[in-house]
Amino acid sequence: MKIVVQKYGGTSVGTTERIKQVADKIIEKREAGYHVVVIVSAMGKTTDELVSLAKAVSNNPEPREMDMLLTTGEQISISLLSMALISKGHSAVSYTGPQLNVQTTALHQKARIKDIDVTKVTNALENDKVVVVAGFQGVTEDNEYTTLGRGGSDTSAVALAAKLGASCEIYTDVDGIYTMDPRKLKNARKIDRISYEEMMEMASLGAGVMHYRAVELANKYKLPLYVGSTFSKNKGTMIEHGGGESMEETVITGMASSLDDVQVTVLNLPSSITSLYRLFGHMGEEEVNVDMISQMITDDGKMYVSFTIPKDDLIVAEGILQQWKEEDPLIEWETNTCIAKISVVGLGMRTHSGVAAKVFEIMSENNIDIKMVTTSEIKITFVVDNAEEDKVIQLIGNAFELVVNE
Amino acid sequence: MKIVVQKYGGTSVGTTERIKQVADKIIEKREAGYHVVVIVSAMGKTTDELVSLAKAVSNNPEPREMDMLLTTGEQISISLLSMALISKGHSAVSYTGPQLNVQTTALHQKARIKDIDVTKVTNALENDKVVVVAGFQGVTEDNEYTTLGRGGSDTSAVALAAKLGASCEIYTDVDGIYTMDPRKLKNARKIDRISYEEMMEMASLGAGVMHYRAVELANKYKLPLYVGSTFSKNKGTMIEHGGGESMEETVITGMASSLDDVQVTVLNLPSSITSLYRLFGHMGEEEVNVDMISQMITDDGKMYVSFTIPKDDLIVAEGILQQWKEEDPLIEWETNTCIAKISVVGLGMRTHSGVAAKVFEIMSENNIDIKMVTTSEIKITFVVDNAEEDKVIQLIGNAFELVVNE
Repeated sequence: MKIVVQKYGGTSVGTTERIKQVADKIIEKREAGYHVVVIVSAMGKTTDELVSLAKAVSNNPEPREMDMLLTTGEQISISLLSMALISKGHSAVSYTGPQLNVQTTALHQKARIKDIDVTKVTNALENDKVVVVAGFQGVTEDNEYTTLGRGGSDTSAVALAAKLGASCEIYTDVDGIYTMDPRKLKNARKIDRISYEEMMEMASLGAGVMHYRAVELANKYKLPLYVGSTFSKNKGTMIEHGGGESMEETVITGMASSLDDVQVTVLNLPSSITSLYRLFGHMGEEEVNVDMISQMITDDGKMYVSFTIPKDDLIVAEGILQQWKEEDPLIEWETNTCIAKISVVGLGMRTHSGVAAKVFEIMSENNIDIKMVTTSEIKITFVVDNAEEDKVIQLIGNAFELVVNE
Repeated sequence: MKIVVQKYGGTSVGTTERIKQVADKIIEKREAGYHVVVIVSAMGKTTDELVSLAKAVSNNPEPREMDMLLTTGEQISISLLSMALISKGHSAVSYTGPQLNVQTTALHQKARIKDIDVTKVTNALENDKVVVVAGFQGVTEDNEYTTLGRGGSDTSAVALAAKLGASCEIYTDVDGIYTMDPRKLKNARKIDRISYEEMMEMASLGAGVMHYRAVELANKYKLPLYVGSTFSKNKGTMIEHGGGESMEETVITGMASSLDDVQVTVLNLPSSITSLYRLFGHMGEEEVNVDMISQMITDDGKMYVSFTIPKDDLIVAEGILQQWKEEDPLIEWETNTCIAKISVVGLGMRTHSGVAAKVFEIMSENNIDIKMVTTSEIKITFVVDNAEEDKVIQLIGNAFELVVNE
């Protein structure tokens, strides 16, 4: 019998009524002849509520204790879903991450999966049970509970599907991947098929729905990922190996925009590769996610480096810079939080040149200042003032056919 | 440095504000020169809320999945208390039952502790940390999560104190043990010292505050238990080894009353010891808590047996009887849920005879019918109509000096 791993997000299990509907959907799949393994997130607002409790007792909750707290969220939903399935006459059993020995690194709140022991899962499947697994969580060698950070439950689902040789379906509150978040680009098109590479680029830019880590892992194991809506019958999006060209036969597959980044510009760095290595090496060690980087050397041999990081990482990044400044008092830095980071992504860029030129042309015609730009083989990312975000999205969306044909 | 195990109940950690107050109380103890290990229950109404969620998805939630669900309650409170301590500048670490390998039997919702591995606890204490442990929960050999049932967190505290050679303090929302629940007997007296035996008798009768299992375990290890209020400075009650006589130098130390029992009368049992063995053996296997038993043999060799059990166990008990009836159709039974089970307890009964006679005298003078009576060395228990409960309590309370002297 084929095994399918289904993942249901927090909104899909947001109420007990929805949990019962999810149970029906799982039963439908079982009755179609599949073994079903289910990964669930915490119910709707549970995580937010837990975070509020933590903030009420501590200004700066210890990450280890936050993981202790947050892992309860999924544990609640797996037990309820399992009960709902049993109550509908189907055999089911729930497991936490620690119970399945979902081994992770020890970095609390941002742990990474090292391995999963699927013995309990395969035993339960052999006994014809639906196996309900807590996503987002794992355990270190020392039996400390960890969470995987953003996109964690999707990553759990992909990792488990890869270990089981199963197919993987991600159910959420939208019915697939769109060329852009429809809240940002009205009339954005739904994409039928997208390659891992395009999806990774889009995900790494904060294009909702799927998180980078999950897509990266799916790509590593060449595991096709279906993304669809929990409660609608509309066809979703298949993320899979895309060969050499864009699946959609368009130059640009999608666009993403983020207001969650900050641009940091460091002035007066000693001009040597050691500086860059030290700066970004240190950022990496502290798990600061540096995205765009641009660098300039002045006449007097000093280096300017500009880079973007998530706003959440700014305190850590400034700590690193402050430490350096204590050794080298010339070092200064500026931060700009009023930016929008916009990216266009498409495998088609490999064979169609001139995409960057077209973006610059559009910006120039509309008097929009580009503060920073980086390009890769299938992506162009540029930073504009956050006040220009909507305008830029509409202009690019129309120019590259990212909207539904009227 | 001496180790103390403190246990805080659900009301004591009912809000984040209270969790911070509990943290202060723990810090006070630390600063008085103790290593502190803390056992906490789930926050106030958490368990009830979780039970409501379960009932919303299932009419008859699977016990294993209930344990999966309910164990999250304590996990939330340990993480919050630990955060609060850290935020107040004290080193702290929280552990779940499974993390400390609190080995239990496999009976979900009513598991019993077999052993606790205190290595992590002692290591953390050596590193000068407050150790915050989830009460009420454990884990089987197969790594299945279990809960200990009623009184579970107190039992966890006593077991941990015994393993650590620590003293044990139980903090709750009342300031000690009273001769009777003051909601039932106005002007009930607080008891300064009570023996394990008296406390066990009272606890087994549902006299709030302490649960039988915890006192039994404390008695086994001769571990003195202090019971006091979390938020008042009033002196509490010490439960300890009582030598041969009542600590309070009264004949009767306390009284308890319960409306949570049902009287079951089985008619037409074959009159042989095998019948009794079979009946109560089977009840025991199914964890039905049989309390009072009385038996009578009729002229024609049939046996009548009357016994009391918690109302919660009635479905299971009737299932057992029904099964038997299928083999022996003569067997009939009656149940009476309108009963109050009232007990008086006192080591002094060993040396003062006539307590039972005095009880019967009072009942007789007041025309109160006793439906069933059992006695032990230090306890007399009798069943009356539940409508008489208040009256009986006042009569007995006054007669045996269980109230505060005016």
